[in-house]
Amino acid sequence: MRTLYHLWLSPFSRKVRVVLAEKNLDFDMEVEETWERRHEFLALNPTGEVPVLIEPDNTVLADSIGICEYLEEKYPEPNLIGKNLYDRAEVRRLVAWFDLKFNKEVTDKLLNEKVMKRFLGLGEPDSREIRAAQSNIHTHLDYITFLTDRRFWLAGDELTLADITAAAHISAIDYLGDVPWSNYKSAKNWYARIKSRPSFKSILSDRIPGLPVPKNYTNLDF
Amino acid sequence: MRTLYHLWLSPFSRKVRVVLAEKNLDFDMEVEETWERRHEFLALNPTGEVPVLIEPDNTVLADSIGICEYLEEKYPEPNLIGKNLYDRAEVRRLVAWFDLKFNKEVTDKLLNEKVMKRFLGLGEPDSREIRAAQSNIHTHLDYITFLTDRRFWLAGDELTLADITAAAHISAIDYLGDVPWSNYKSAKNWYARIKSRPSFKSILSDRIPGLPVPKNYTNLDF
Repeated sequence: MRTLYHLWLSPFSRKVRVVLAEKNLDFDMEVEETWERRHEFLALNPTGEVPVLIEPDNTVLADSIGICEYLEEKYPEPNLIGKNLYDRAEVRRLVAWFDLKFNKEVTDKLLNEKVMKRFLGLGEPDSREIRAAQSNIHTHLDYITFLTDRRFWLAGDELTLADITAAAHISAIDYLGDVPWSNYKSAKNWYARIKSRPSFKSILSDRIPGLPVPKNYTNLDF
Repeated sequence: MRTLYHLWLSPFSRKVRVVLAEKNLDFDMEVEETWERRHEFLALNPTGEVPVLIEPDNTVLADSIGICEYLEEKYPEPNLIGKNLYDRAEVRRLVAWFDLKFNKEVTDKLLNEKVMKRFLGLGEPDSREIRAAQSNIHTHLDYITFLTDRRFWLAGDELTLADITAAAHISAIDYLGDVPWSNYKSAKNWYARIKSRPSFKSILSDRIPGLPVPKNYTNLDF
């Protein structure tokens, strides 16, 4: 069996969960409390970060980009990175957008302040950081609007890793109730299409003890 | 002609410069002062970050990982990402190590505090950040030592994008005199092999106005 070491709200773990599900690959999940710096886990991935995927042949894969490129090469159907050079460049550009820019400006700030500080007892959330993230997200929803006004999926006609990556980040902060959907109709329609995919069902059924889920997190009509 | 928009000490730009040189691809370089948020540049890459590469057919590529994956697919020789699934997973794991972990713990802190703040007049460097980076680098030199005690190059027998990525980060902070080479013999031998490659010559001849280069930056015997 395949095992994914993950954290519930980690956008990078969520991305891998959806990719595995889109490719119909079965896997078990193990929560890894990365802050414990568990010795056996550090031996698997010296960075100490999730996601880590152990393949059925015991190949150990770390880092979401490396994991997704490996899965695409080993299990090419359905294609998630694009079929020609130009499409693949566009998919990877958008993956980097969400994993670097969106993560730094939005996801990382909100998860740190609202979740990690609380669960690890690291003090009060910094309201300036939360406000900055809540302001920054508008630029990103504008960008998703720009793209989805012109394309059915973010990188073109087909669902790709760009959509999965964006939705992984957005779903994590949607769990915190921090996505101002009401002003972003075409971004909302795009996210509704993602939410209705079977591969996303497991993400929508996540329930983190001590962190109540907002009603609209699961609703397909939100 | 091919054009690379870059910044002199950006490790991500340096990585692309070395990859292009390893693949014998000619290119011009244009410095992009990303903090100016130039309209024409934002049209090329809405994140506003370097590197951006314009290919001879006018394909616009952004983000160093996307650029390197594209170049590897379009110009596969010499192979820089590995020939089989397992080697490729290892190369990408190490690329993520340096681009995420090393960058966050070392490069980004030193470049921000010692270079960006000074050139952009953003106040005094924060000595705690500089000390943190100078302490963090030891873990990374230990890890390079661990790898190079077992392998000739970081990911195995051949030079790959893992070495180029690591050397891109290290060279940027070596320009600032912040690599404590004396205690790391096998890491130093590895870096000396990179420095002696023709593809690295342009990196070693960089001279940034107002930022004198330490003597050992260029020396092959350092």
